[in-house]
Amino acid sequence: MRTLAGVGSTPRAGVGTTRWYRPEADLTLPDRPDPASVDADAELDRYEAARDAVREALRDARDRAAERVGEEEAAVFEAHEGFLDDPTIIEDVEAAIREGTPAEHAVADRFDEAVAQFEGMEGRMAERADDLRDVRDRLLRALLAGDGQASAAAAGLAALPDGTVLLAERLTPSDTAALDPEAVAGVATVEGGRTSHAAIIARSLAVPAVVGVGEALESINDGETVLVDGEAGEVVVDPDEERRESVRESGPDAIPERVATADGRPIAVAANVGGEVELAPAAGRGADGVGLFRTEFLFVDREAPPTEDEQYEAVTAALSAFPDDRVVVRTLDVGGDKPVPYLDLPDEPNPFLGRRGVRLSLDEHADLFETQLRALLRAAATEDGDGLAVMFPLVTRVEEVERAVDAVESVAADLADEGVAHVVPELGAMIETPAAAFLADALADRLDFLSVGTNDLAQYVMAADRGNDAVAEYHDPLHPAVLRALDRTTAAAEGSDAWVGMCGEMAGDPALTELLVGLGFDELSMSAVTVPEVKARVREVDADAAASLANEALACETRGEVLDALGLGERDA
Amino acid sequence: MRTLAGVGSTPRAGVGTTRWYRPEADLTLPDRPDPASVDADAELDRYEAARDAVREALRDARDRAAERVGEEEAAVFEAHEGFLDDPTIIEDVEAAIREGTPAEHAVADRFDEAVAQFEGMEGRMAERADDLRDVRDRLLRALLAGDGQASAAAAGLAALPDGTVLLAERLTPSDTAALDPEAVAGVATVEGGRTSHAAIIARSLAVPAVVGVGEALESINDGETVLVDGEAGEVVVDPDEERRESVRESGPDAIPERVATADGRPIAVAANVGGEVELAPAAGRGADGVGLFRTEFLFVDREAPPTEDEQYEAVTAALSAFPDDRVVVRTLDVGGDKPVPYLDLPDEPNPFLGRRGVRLSLDEHADLFETQLRALLRAAATEDGDGLAVMFPLVTRVEEVERAVDAVESVAADLADEGVAHVVPELGAMIETPAAAFLADALADRLDFLSVGTNDLAQYVMAADRGNDAVAEYHDPLHPAVLRALDRTTAAAEGSDAWVGMCGEMAGDPALTELLVGLGFDELSMSAVTVPEVKARVREVDADAAASLANEALACETRGEVLDALGLGERDA
Repeated sequence: MRTLAGVGSTPRAGVGTTRWYRPEADLTLPDRPDPASVDADAELDRYEAARDAVREALRDARDRAAERVGEEEAAVFEAHEGFLDDPTIIEDVEAAIREGTPAEHAVADRFDEAVAQFEGMEGRMAERADDLRDVRDRLLRALLAGDGQASAAAAGLAALPDGTVLLAERLTPSDTAALDPEAVAGVATVEGGRTSHAAIIARSLAVPAVVGVGEALESINDGETVLVDGEAGEVVVDPDEERRESVRESGPDAIPERVATADGRPIAVAANVGGEVELAPAAGRGADGVGLFRTEFLFVDREAPPTEDEQYEAVTAALSAFPDDRVVVRTLDVGGDKPVPYLDLPDEPNPFLGRRGVRLSLDEHADLFETQLRALLRAAATEDGDGLAVMFPLVTRVEEVERAVDAVESVAADLADEGVAHVVPELGAMIETPAAAFLADALADRLDFLSVGTNDLAQYVMAADRGNDAVAEYHDPLHPAVLRALDRTTAAAEGSDAWVGMCGEMAGDPALTELLVGLGFDELSMSAVTVPEVKARVREVDADAAASLANEALACETRGEVLDALGLGERDA
Repeated sequence: MRTLAGVGSTPRAGVGTTRWYRPEADLTLPDRPDPASVDADAELDRYEAARDAVREALRDARDRAAERVGEEEAAVFEAHEGFLDDPTIIEDVEAAIREGTPAEHAVADRFDEAVAQFEGMEGRMAERADDLRDVRDRLLRALLAGDGQASAAAAGLAALPDGTVLLAERLTPSDTAALDPEAVAGVATVEGGRTSHAAIIARSLAVPAVVGVGEALESINDGETVLVDGEAGEVVVDPDEERRESVRESGPDAIPERVATADGRPIAVAANVGGEVELAPAAGRGADGVGLFRTEFLFVDREAPPTEDEQYEAVTAALSAFPDDRVVVRTLDVGGDKPVPYLDLPDEPNPFLGRRGVRLSLDEHADLFETQLRALLRAAATEDGDGLAVMFPLVTRVEEVERAVDAVESVAADLADEGVAHVVPELGAMIETPAAAFLADALADRLDFLSVGTNDLAQYVMAADRGNDAVAEYHDPLHPAVLRALDRTTAAAEGSDAWVGMCGEMAGDPALTELLVGLGFDELSMSAVTVPEVKARVREVDADAAASLANEALACETRGEVLDALGLGERDA
């Protein structure tokens, strides 16, 4: 038994047989020709064609990732498109080509330079180097092979034998999104950090992962038995029986069905689910139902919207996966960063401040909204349907909630006229704008529940695009202003019958569980992979102590004071 | 004496001699040739070249408007650039050209179609038709004359004789921005609405204006004596002495120096100023100092940033214009929608949620910030300098204010070392993000004042781009959520020594003066043109009744309830 230390990325462990992944072997560039012999115009055309091919491949990858992994994780491929269209890179590559450099060398030179620049930066920016490599490799592949797809090796990632532990110098987001989570027992890489896009994707696939192991990883050969412990951040070669046993013990069987704080306050710990494929893993991780069922996967990667019956089938599948639990379905939330070609969404200068969410459902997409509501009200009338809850995204006005409730009632009346079985489920609003937080009392009076989306809420409270790394330090939910917006929400709901959940990334961080219990949340919903950890943490929390902790955090005026109050010391945004 | 009714746009009156403005005469298109005789490739090149020329001219117009009129009004020219680059228009024009239509006819056909579409819409959208005409005319001029500038007629607008009353079918934003406010006694148009871009620009130039008079306006000839009453919405031909007298009485002489509510609470009514040229008119309208001195005009339309001395001169000019009043200078607020070429601002997918305001001043623009602070601290030490106050834009974190104050102290120490006279002025923060509203207590503890920017605050609270007409109904400050954010700010400051002002558009609406007094604002700052009206309104307000009204408005849950509480009935967003 030999142990190598790295950075735990997905807090799960798995044992399997190693296989090295070395995808860059097929990207050898031809020798550089004499500049005078290069036809610059032809090379510029090749570069342009390669960019077009890669753009198309990236859009496919985005749509596939949105369906398999989740919308938020899929956004990385939009960032990749940004690198592809970066005017300074384009300018430099074109200038080099005009001076007689063949397209592939011009691309490799310029991207390698950018990779080196990013690697010289601090923290999250350094991890963007992986994204640049991903785009570079796609461009080179397009120039050398003409397709712009991820590598043939990457395509092979989808078909690994069961129980594979994948070893690699590094994985790109494209590589990681291609993994079959059922087959892969673990992933370990030489390079990479916990917040790289590849690590984030691995986490949402619940694949045990340790990154940044260093050169020592190269000492492991193909075919060895290795345990990847993403909690301890360890890669164990030839693990002994005791160590293997510990993996089995930490497995799903050990997770209790329902949890409460040490002093008996029940807290639902649910999963965020972005597609039907994630339902069984979420149930397997012990989730108390679904706190956020994103319906966008039904709409992307196709030519026309899904039918009422298709939506009904998807929702009843979710209800059947959690027959005794609540399943919160969010109505269609497109716009902003979520393109759906056939919906003909407008280009906007600030899409996050434009037409998205319930704004579209109440107006230009009223027909889609009606179809979705019909499917939902029918699903609520099925055997497992009493757990259904429906919530509306991007609410900013009481008037919108009133109109959405009217739409539900109108659909119910139509179904009654048609003699179709239906039930009006619990209705709620996402609290993801400052307006919704300021109006939480009025919303709680009119609805059955509120569910805070911390990613968007932090973005609007802090005026910081959550997809823009240049303002990453601003969109952290531990900024005092964001905590005060959360408090405004839970405090407003306290005087009503509405329950309050959280379905943003913040909910899945066990280091914040006590704070969130103290703020008064009744349900926490997260990536399925962190459900067991958060459940364990809930059982240790004392509700009174948690309330004191929350008050202490709310009195803080800087993020540093909040971290001190939570005992978290230094921590990356 | 003969009176024509229209829509008052700028609430001032003026008397002068009429002159018709008929700019479209020089845009006669040549006859359509036989399609077979058209060289489509050459026409496509001409179209492309015309778009380039217009783009350049629009950017010049934007910079000039920013300097003369204000940054917010200048944004209309960015919207025009959007029409220029609209992919559906480009596609259609190019398709027509390929089928043998000459470029100017293809442009005229397609834009006329779009103009008709917009004219068929409701409210604000209909007024965008003027913007389309403006872009169409520039394109045609570029195709016919090769320059893409506004018309020669428009250029003549800058050189009208003193006391001109300008009559026109309609004015484009380009036309209006070219007016010399000293020379023009009034403007009246056949078409147009109160919220058209041209009307907004006329308002910020304080030019008396009545729009939408209808065909009756055509009955007036050149050289007649006309009174334009923008308050009553009337155009009076051959006004009698009594009517002329009323204009003089409502003039600047009648405005009191300082005002207080009926029960004696003093309220400062100040002006927003976007350039030195606006200082004298603001003083002439009776403004109690400057509540927002935008410094961007010093930075736009040039090749390099202004020197410390240039900035010092501009700030001392403002202080000298208001020797007994406060002058609040906002430090450089670029980013978002405010491009400054030599500052090399990043392209961002959501610029309003990106790097702007104090974020840049504390980081990549720290050198500019230091130079500006040196100029400000020196200006504060001059004879009229004790009225200087300095505020930081787009604050979201207490840490930022602490760093900004550190920067001020460091500059003061440098100046002391150099033996340069200086004073540290009052320091404050813009409250224009939800984060700043949630942290207003902490900010008020550390600063001398807070100043609410309602345009940005409403945009972030409501998650609605204030430049995007498709979400115009959302970024109204009378939404209950925005009022609650205002209340959070004034209530938090109440327990501190800090005063609270408002320098957003909301402050200049006399229908809202009682509400704002009731919410606890100490200063209201607005376009100079509405200062007299708001001063008059302040003197009628009873502070206790205002507080009751504010509480009533804060209890409202919909915008409709707010309008009812304020007695405003139906009102456009």
